Amino acid sequence: MSGGTAGSGLAGVTAGKTAISTVGKEGKGLTYRGYAIEMLAERASFEEVAYLLIYGQSPSRAQLTEYREQLRSLRRLPEGLKPVLEALPGNSHPMDVMRTGCSALGCLEPEINRDQQWDIANRLLALFPSLLLYWYQFHHHGIRIETDTEEESLAGHFLNLLHGESPGAIPRRVLDASLILYAEHEFAASTFAARVTTSTLSDFYSAVTAAIGTLRGTLHGGANEAAMALIERFQEPDEAEQGVLAALENKEKIMGFGHRVYKEADPRNAIIKDWCRQLAERAGDSYLFPIAERIEVVMKREKGLFPNLDFYIAPAYRFLGIPVHLYTPLFVCSRVAGWAAHIMEQRADNRLIRPMANYIGPEPRDFVPIEQRG
Amino acid sequence: MSGGTAGSGLAGVTAGKTAISTVGKEGKGLTYRGYAIEMLAERASFEEVAYLLIYGQSPSRAQLTEYREQLRSLRRLPEGLKPVLEALPGNSHPMDVMRTGCSALGCLEPEINRDQQWDIANRLLALFPSLLLYWYQFHHHGIRIETDTEEESLAGHFLNLLHGESPGAIPRRVLDASLILYAEHEFAASTFAARVTTSTLSDFYSAVTAAIGTLRGTLHGGANEAAMALIERFQEPDEAEQGVLAALENKEKIMGFGHRVYKEADPRNAIIKDWCRQLAERAGDSYLFPIAERIEVVMKREKGLFPNLDFYIAPAYRFLGIPVHLYTPLFVCSRVAGWAAHIMEQRADNRLIRPMANYIGPEPRDFVPIEQRG
Repeated sequence: MSGGTAGSGLAGVTAGKTAISTVGKEGKGLTYRGYAIEMLAERASFEEVAYLLIYGQSPSRAQLTEYREQLRSLRRLPEGLKPVLEALPGNSHPMDVMRTGCSALGCLEPEINRDQQWDIANRLLALFPSLLLYWYQFHHHGIRIETDTEEESLAGHFLNLLHGESPGAIPRRVLDASLILYAEHEFAASTFAARVTTSTLSDFYSAVTAAIGTLRGTLHGGANEAAMALIERFQEPDEAEQGVLAALENKEKIMGFGHRVYKEADPRNAIIKDWCRQLAERAGDSYLFPIAERIEVVMKREKGLFPNLDFYIAPAYRFLGIPVHLYTPLFVCSRVAGWAAHIMEQRADNRLIRPMANYIGPEPRDFVPIEQRG
Repeated sequence: MSGGTAGSGLAGVTAGKTAISTVGKEGKGLTYRGYAIEMLAERASFEEVAYLLIYGQSPSRAQLTEYREQLRSLRRLPEGLKPVLEALPGNSHPMDVMRTGCSALGCLEPEINRDQQWDIANRLLALFPSLLLYWYQFHHHGIRIETDTEEESLAGHFLNLLHGESPGAIPRRVLDASLILYAEHEFAASTFAARVTTSTLSDFYSAVTAAIGTLRGTLHGGANEAAMALIERFQEPDEAEQGVLAALENKEKIMGFGHRVYKEADPRNAIIKDWCRQLAERAGDSYLFPIAERIEVVMKREKGLFPNLDFYIAPAYRFLGIPVHLYTPLFVCSRVAGWAAHIMEQRADNRLIRPMANYIGPEPRDFVPIEQRG
C-alpha cells in the first residue's frame, strides 16, 4: 500500500521505461530510436521506420529490400478470415471491424510461443490494409477483392486496394509520410493499453486488439475523424470562425487540438500541414485548407491551443480520396509498428501492471438477505 | 513532466478513484459496494451481485425477479454471430473466441449512445455463456445448440448448455458462488485495461474486449488453468510435494499463489476451498483435493505464499465436469459485471489515462538516408 499517488489519468506519472521514442522532451520534439521525426518523414519510407521500430535499428539497403519483400508476401488474407469479415455488417464502424479482424486472426494464426512475435508483428503490419479493404469492398461494392498487390509500399498497397488502381507518386508519398508520423508515440493510451494487456503474459493479438479498441476513442485516434466532421460543417473560412466561436461558447470539445504531453506544438503538425497545403494546391482546393487554417488561427487565439497531427491529416486524407471512416483504421495500419515494439519491450522486462485505487464508496455495511428485503 | 514517478508495474500507485470495491484494505478483506465477500458468497446469488455492481445498490425482491427475467430474455445469440463463431477454429483458445465474439457483437449491436450502457452490460452478461458454448458445442460435438434455456440463473444456464441437462442443486450453487467471488476486484489488470480503453471515449465493447484479452494472461485470469495444469501433473500428495519443490528449485513460476495487493491471505480462498472440499467428498475424490492441499502447504512453508482464488477454483471446476479451457472464460462470464461497473464509473468522471515514460534509448542521432547506407 506504500508508494506514490498519481494525478488524475496518470498525468505526469512515469509508468515505466522505454527505449523506443521520446515525446515532448522539454515540451516539444519527437524521436524514434533517437532519430528526429522531421528527418524520418522527409527522408525515410514507412517500411524503413517500421523496421527501425520493430528491430531497434535502421535496416541496411539489403535488409530493407528483403523486409519489403517479406511484407509483400504476407498480404494475402487467410481463407478463414473471409467469412468473418463477410459476416460483419457493412455499416459497422471500421474500427470495430479492425478490432474483430485482429482478434479473429489470433484464433486462426495463434501465437504459440514468443519466438513468433516478430513474424506476428510483420503479419499484422502487412495484413491490416488487406483486412480492412476486403471488408470494405465486399460490403460497399459487392466484390471479393484479391488482397495481394505488387505495390512496393504499404501506402501504395492501401490506395491500390481502395481505388482499384495503382496510385500516383504524390498520393503515395503523402500517405507514406502520414504513416511515418502515426507510427509511434511512446505511452499513448492505446500503447499503454497494449502494455497492460501484455503484462499479464497474454498473447500478441490480445494486446493489439486492446490497442485498436483504445485508439478508437475520439480523445485518441478517433480525433482525425472528428476533425473532419468539424471542418466539413463549414463552407468558407468566415463561417468556420463563427462556428468555432459558437462551439467554444457552448463548451463543445474541439478535436484535433492540444496534447497531454506537448506543451508548445506538435512537431508532426508542420509536416502534415505542409503536405496538406501541397495537396490542396494540386487539387485546386479553395475552401477545405483555408477553413482548416482559419480554425487553427481561432483555436490559437481563443484557447492558446495548437493543432495536433490528427487535425491536418483529416483534410489531407480527404484530398487522397479516402473515406472519412477509414482515417482511424489507417492510423491502426501504421501504429501497429509502434505497438509491436512496445509489446516486445514490455515482455523483455515484464512486471504486471496493476495500480491501486482510492476507495470512495460506502463504508462496510450489513448484508440483508433477499428474503428479508422489501 | 512534473508529478510523481511510479514503481515498476504501477505497484502501489493510485491510478484513480472507485466506489465499487475494496481489495485488501490493511492487506486483507474484500467488499463489493460495502458488503463483505463472505456474506455475499454465502447469502446472495450471482444475479443479485451483478445487479449490485452494475446499479450500485442491492435489488429489492421485485427488482431481482425482474432482473433475472431480463437476463433470461437476452440469452439468444444474434443470427449474425453464428457464422463468426462457426468460422473460428475448434482448436482456438476459448479466450480468443470470447474476445472475438465480444468484438463481433460490437459490430452487430453497436453502442450508438451512452444511454445504452446498462443494456449492453446486461446483454454481455446474459450472452457470454451462450456465445462460448455455442462455439464449443458446434466444434466439439458438431451441434448447433439453442442458447436460451429456462434456467433461472447464469450458473444453471452455463451447466445446462455444457452438459445438455439441467444441473443438480449443488453444482449450480458452487458455480454460482464461484461467479460471485470472480465478479469484481477493483483495479485488477483487466479492469484497468477496460478503464484505459474507456478513457479515450471509446465504446463499451472495445473496453470489454480489451479486458478479456488482458484477463487471458497467466499472471491474471489464466492462472486458474495454469493451476489445474500443475495439480494434474501429480498422482498423489507426496509426488506433488517433490514436484513442487523441484519446480521451485528450477525457478518455475507456480500460478495461483500470492497477490499484488493481498499480503496475508486472499479472503476468497477459504470460501472456494470449502466448496472444493465438499465437492471432493461428494465425488469420493481421494487425490485431487489432497494434492491441492499439499501444494498449498509446500508453498506456504517454502515461499510464505497463500493460495489465491484461482488455485482451488481449478479442482472445484474439475469436479463440476467443466473442461479446463473453459475456466478462464467462466471468469469472463462473471467479471464482466465488475468491468461494466468500472466502465460506467470511468465515464462518469473521465480523464484520458495517459502516463509518461522514462526514456532509456539512444541519444538524438543523425539520420543517414538509405541511399547512403551499406
